[in-house]
Amino acid sequence: MSTALVILAAGKGTRMESDLPKVLHKIGGAPLLHHAMLSASALEPERTIVVTGHGADLVEAAAQDFDADAIAVRQDEQLGTAHAVAQAKTALDGFEGDVIVLYGDTPFITTETLEQMIAARTSSDVVVLGFEAVDPGRYGRLIVDGSALMQIVEFKDATEAERAVSLCNSGVVCVSKDLLFDLLGAVGNDNAAGEYYLPDIVGIANARGLKATAVTCDEAETLGINSRLELASAEALFQHSKRRALIEDGVMMQAPDTVFLSFDTIIGRDAEIEPNVIFAPGVTVESGARIRAFSHLEGAHVSRGATVGPFARLRPGAELAEHVHIGNFVEIKNATIDEGAKVNHLTYIGDAQIGARTNVGAGTITCNYDGVMKHKTIIGRDTFIGSNTMLIAPVTVGDEAMTATATVVTKDVPDGAMAISRAEQNNKPGFARKLFSMLRAKKAKMAKG
Amino acid sequence: MSTALVILAAGKGTRMESDLPKVLHKIGGAPLLHHAMLSASALEPERTIVVTGHGADLVEAAAQDFDADAIAVRQDEQLGTAHAVAQAKTALDGFEGDVIVLYGDTPFITTETLEQMIAARTSSDVVVLGFEAVDPGRYGRLIVDGSALMQIVEFKDATEAERAVSLCNSGVVCVSKDLLFDLLGAVGNDNAAGEYYLPDIVGIANARGLKATAVTCDEAETLGINSRLELASAEALFQHSKRRALIEDGVMMQAPDTVFLSFDTIIGRDAEIEPNVIFAPGVTVESGARIRAFSHLEGAHVSRGATVGPFARLRPGAELAEHVHIGNFVEIKNATIDEGAKVNHLTYIGDAQIGARTNVGAGTITCNYDGVMKHKTIIGRDTFIGSNTMLIAPVTVGDEAMTATATVVTKDVPDGAMAISRAEQNNKPGFARKLFSMLRAKKAKMAKG
Amino acid sequence: MSTALVILAAGKGTRMESDLPKVLHKIGGAPLLHHAMLSASALEPERTIVVTGHGADLVEAAAQDFDADAIAVRQDEQLGTAHAVAQAKTALDGFEGDVIVLYGDTPFITTETLEQMIAARTSSDVVVLGFEAVDPGRYGRLIVDGSALMQIVEFKDATEAERAVSLCNSGVVCVSKDLLFDLLGAVGNDNAAGEYYLPDIVGIANARGLKATAVTCDEAETLGINSRLELASAEALFQHSKRRALIEDGVMMQAPDTVFLSFDTIIGRDAEIEPNVIFAPGVTVESGARIRAFSHLEGAHVSRGATVGPFARLRPGAELAEHVHIGNFVEIKNATIDEGAKVNHLTYIGDAQIGARTNVGAGTITCNYDGVMKHKTIIGRDTFIGSNTMLIAPVTVGDEAMTATATVVTKDVPDGAMAISRAEQNNKPGFARKLFSMLRAKKAKMAKG
Repeated sequence: MSTALVILAAGKGTRMESDLPKVLHKIGGAPLLHHAMLSASALEPERTIVVTGHGADLVEAAAQDFDADAIAVRQDEQLGTAHAVAQAKTALDGFEGDVIVLYGDTPFITTETLEQMIAARTSSDVVVLGFEAVDPGRYGRLIVDGSALMQIVEFKDATEAERAVSLCNSGVVCVSKDLLFDLLGAVGNDNAAGEYYLPDIVGIANARGLKATAVTCDEAETLGINSRLELASAEALFQHSKRRALIEDGVMMQAPDTVFLSFDTIIGRDAEIEPNVIFAPGVTVESGARIRAFSHLEGAHVSRGATVGPFARLRPGAELAEHVHIGNFVEIKNATIDEGAKVNHLTYIGDAQIGARTNVGAGTITCNYDGVMKHKTIIGRDTFIGSNTMLIAPVTVGDEAMTATATVVTKDVPDGAMAISRAEQNNKPGFARKLFSMLRAKKAKMAKG
Repeated sequence: MSTALVILAAGKGTRMESDLPKVLHKIGGAPLLHHAMLSASALEPERTIVVTGHGADLVEAAAQDFDADAIAVRQDEQLGTAHAVAQAKTALDGFEGDVIVLYGDTPFITTETLEQMIAARTSSDVVVLGFEAVDPGRYGRLIVDGSALMQIVEFKDATEAERAVSLCNSGVVCVSKDLLFDLLGAVGNDNAAGEYYLPDIVGIANARGLKATAVTCDEAETLGINSRLELASAEALFQHSKRRALIEDGVMMQAPDTVFLSFDTIIGRDAEIEPNVIFAPGVTVESGARIRAFSHLEGAHVSRGATVGPFARLRPGAELAEHVHIGNFVEIKNATIDEGAKVNHLTYIGDAQIGARTNVGAGTITCNYDGVMKHKTIIGRDTFIGSNTMLIAPVTVGDEAMTATATVVTKDVPDGAMAISRAEQNNKPGFARKLFSMLRAKKAKMAKG
Repeated sequence: MSTALVILAAGKGTRMESDLPKVLHKIGGAPLLHHAMLSASALEPERTIVVTGHGADLVEAAAQDFDADAIAVRQDEQLGTAHAVAQAKTALDGFEGDVIVLYGDTPFITTETLEQMIAARTSSDVVVLGFEAVDPGRYGRLIVDGSALMQIVEFKDATEAERAVSLCNSGVVCVSKDLLFDLLGAVGNDNAAGEYYLPDIVGIANARGLKATAVTCDEAETLGINSRLELASAEALFQHSKRRALIEDGVMMQAPDTVFLSFDTIIGRDAEIEPNVIFAPGVTVESGARIRAFSHLEGAHVSRGATVGPFARLRPGAELAEHVHIGNFVEIKNATIDEGAKVNHLTYIGDAQIGARTNVGAGTITCNYDGVMKHKTIIGRDTFIGSNTMLIAPVTVGDEAMTATATVVTKDVPDGAMAISRAEQNNKPGFARKLFSMLRAKKAKMAKG
């Protein structure tokens, strides 16, 4: 059976106190919306419809950034969840199969839970995702009779007995497309808010003699984000669980609470991550690599046996081969560093390629920007780049070559050659003593005067 | 009615294990004494008297650093709180109104609480601040009868019934000046420690037919600091509450627990603060600015749309205009960076002014210190400072100008001009190969020999 | 009475998910094995035998790294703890006295506890270390009768009544050498696992009319490490307790949870440690020194009144005298910095000696490596090293000397002299404007074409 997703992402999120639409706030480096889409992507949905409203252009762009085929539909007025889902009707024309309704601000629902809902559809017409709440509070309650879900009651409409029920509504539903829109057509807005509520389809289905059922999941999966404090808690939860999973797989972390991971961070067994390391999205660290303290990595690949930091920054496109060593106060961007090469101190390598076993001295800079365009630096293998070398890109330094300290490399250096550009050192005897006493006298005079 | 403050700050704080007087230990970047003075400053006190003892000169200087008009009086012998307050008598000559007695090691009392005490003075002669203690322990107990405060009993003098009372004494009192010194005159030292206790004024007032009353506040407000562990807990409390307030106001923090704030940190809505950022005192960050990970800011202003870090340090006097970009391993001190300018890598900018849209290349240094004095660097708008440019201050680079990579700028560069100081690059063929084999042979020989 | 140690360190530690032998995983910068050896070293053991198995070579090297006289013996098959201890027999030839059996994965047992066990040996033949478990779970139970320890029962063999006992077996025992091997000879392997269990010696001793007794310690001391999550918890415990001890001794830490200490970190009273500082092994910080945020120290000594950071890295051999100032993005390695000297910005000092009151300008680099060997830089007192000075080691700069900005120092600079190597600055009028417009045109053309 084919599956389609309808993801509700139109809300303003007033309590976020932000100009950014709520579903674009991030956890683990990815927008909430992407988390919802990611869990569902394993189902290989035939269509994904995102219902947008506030900040629609931004939300649409984010949806298509995750899945280029995602279709955004607008909900111009916010008339309730049933109304939101109804906007997806045209976008689902020609689709036959089950529709799962998800929420852009509910990032933790797992693929396994969605698969259980799909499985439950074989014996029920309407499948709703519920959870046993520790503190049911103001959640809607699922009223069941054996395996049958009879009704979903909003908290404010619930009787005392219904309020005693702890099985709560997550809002996620799975229904065949045709039935879904059929039931939505029967949902009314005869309530205090004048809104069309999606949960009403359960009562309507039962009234028609159809069968509804509830699938349950852990309460943590249904966590929705409504304020920045809730976002911070959800982030903490995400980090805790991702760190724990990595540690259990054999990653070494002295102080896991100080390591920040992204949704897509991959780290191999026996890799060591020292305290205070940040993994922005797009990082892979192989087994046995070592990321030292105070390092920041994004869009980078670190191979087996390589060492990074402390105080290193790998930016997108940093590709470190095996046994590469990147030291302190070093920035690497869009550059390939071949096996065993070393860049140990106070260096900026951008838009470059560095050969195997080459040593890049302290204070080296690839001058990749001429004020208008970026250019590339290529350095060969077994080469020695002297301290404070300036490489004016585009430029190539050969294999087994050398640049003397403080050389400004403006033209290519052949294999085996040494490049040097230097004025002679001139020692002026007694000059320093004279200058200092002159400057001190001047300062004293200014202090008086 | 006018208000005067008497702040007790003479204690040694033996349990702090420190040579620094206790009230000068810091929370959120400000001495405990300043926190006490800050809460009370909203009352616009007519006079502020600080009673000093241990480390009196340092404490006096700190008090006057907060409020130049603060008067320090010495308590040479430590004979109890009543004795301490009595030292303020002469300093209050000519003042008419209420006196509030505060404590230099009690930083969290709020302005609102002090205002309630002043309001309560309209119907009572002596107003004492109390709190309901979760664990009353050895605190003094407030013995009340309806709205009347009858007596304050020290724990060690309390009967079993009195010890069962959970309303405890914070030590903070509000009394009219004349009555205060009148009552103090009647306080004796007939107790085990031979000290004069301020709380005794309550019993004395009642004995004279005057009315005393208690105002209560949250226990957390009365937290006093007596050891470094208590200081660390108080700091954690301060940070937690300050972070929470900023998040609720719309500041984005992925990992609030790793962001350290000062008492005066101001951050606008939708500003983003990445993990591991430290705000020392004096920082303002406007809405929509972004402070990236591992940054340290002090005495700096970051405007809307600007980005700082990762690994950036803004020191006092750093003024970043809108859309400025400060990158990694960059230090900015006493410098104005105009709109849209970029200082992206490995740079020190001190005592400088940088024009709009100017790009400062990697490894640039303002050589602002000649060994004796500091000098200023001025760079115009739309200028391109090549990598590793040394700017020997005082020096000016014009608008739309340029410095070639590794130029040492010793004289001014006019608008539109390019400055260059460079020796020609010379490639010596085969030299590197020869040198390496020579060095390796030498090393091998040394290893043998 | 002489003491010998037998430390069991042969286990694979499968649950660690690591290629590194379990006992070599670290807490506070030292292998678990060293922690066990460290606690026992205060007993001045006459011999230390480490029983190795998995990763034997690495474990042996680590043991001898701690104590060059430690003797490693192999347990080729893992046939139980009694079998493991039996491997130490030959290595103990000629030794007379008590043997204490310890575990390489149990790092927190204190010297005091071991001393209590030795003391208990004066009145008992076999002394076993037990602990009252909060949750006894599957630990072996100590069955006592008054002061006599009758038997140790494995959980799986225990009766309901025995399982109700909360006094558990730590595995640590103290027995005279001769008796130990005598008892071990009587231990059988008639159990499900077919292993020889050390605890069986208790029952055997009692059967022979000998006396066994239990000494108890805090449960936390007996914590064994079996997985990386347990290792992370143990590390957190270690850090918490080490931080607390330092704070109680008068060290100032604004945010103790962000400071990471090593087993041997020494910090003096009234030293200030800002947030986010990492102490790798071998660091001493004197009273009144200040380690600012985001600093990383290893094998370094910081004297009274010195300041380090923020963003500083001290590597092994960094020796800072009083009132030295090391600033941001500075790396110091194997270098002595004399009293009052300053190295404030973006500098690498390696293999060097810097005189008193000397100021090292921003961007200075000691070029200590020629691609094959390391060389030394010596700088005198009261000298001014201009920004971006390159010191090509081996080289010496004298007292009261100076290097001009961007000088490449290849030959020694005498006392009082100024060294300079610089090409003249040349301003090319209008050149920058022309170049920018040319580059922009080129870019526009490329964008089109």
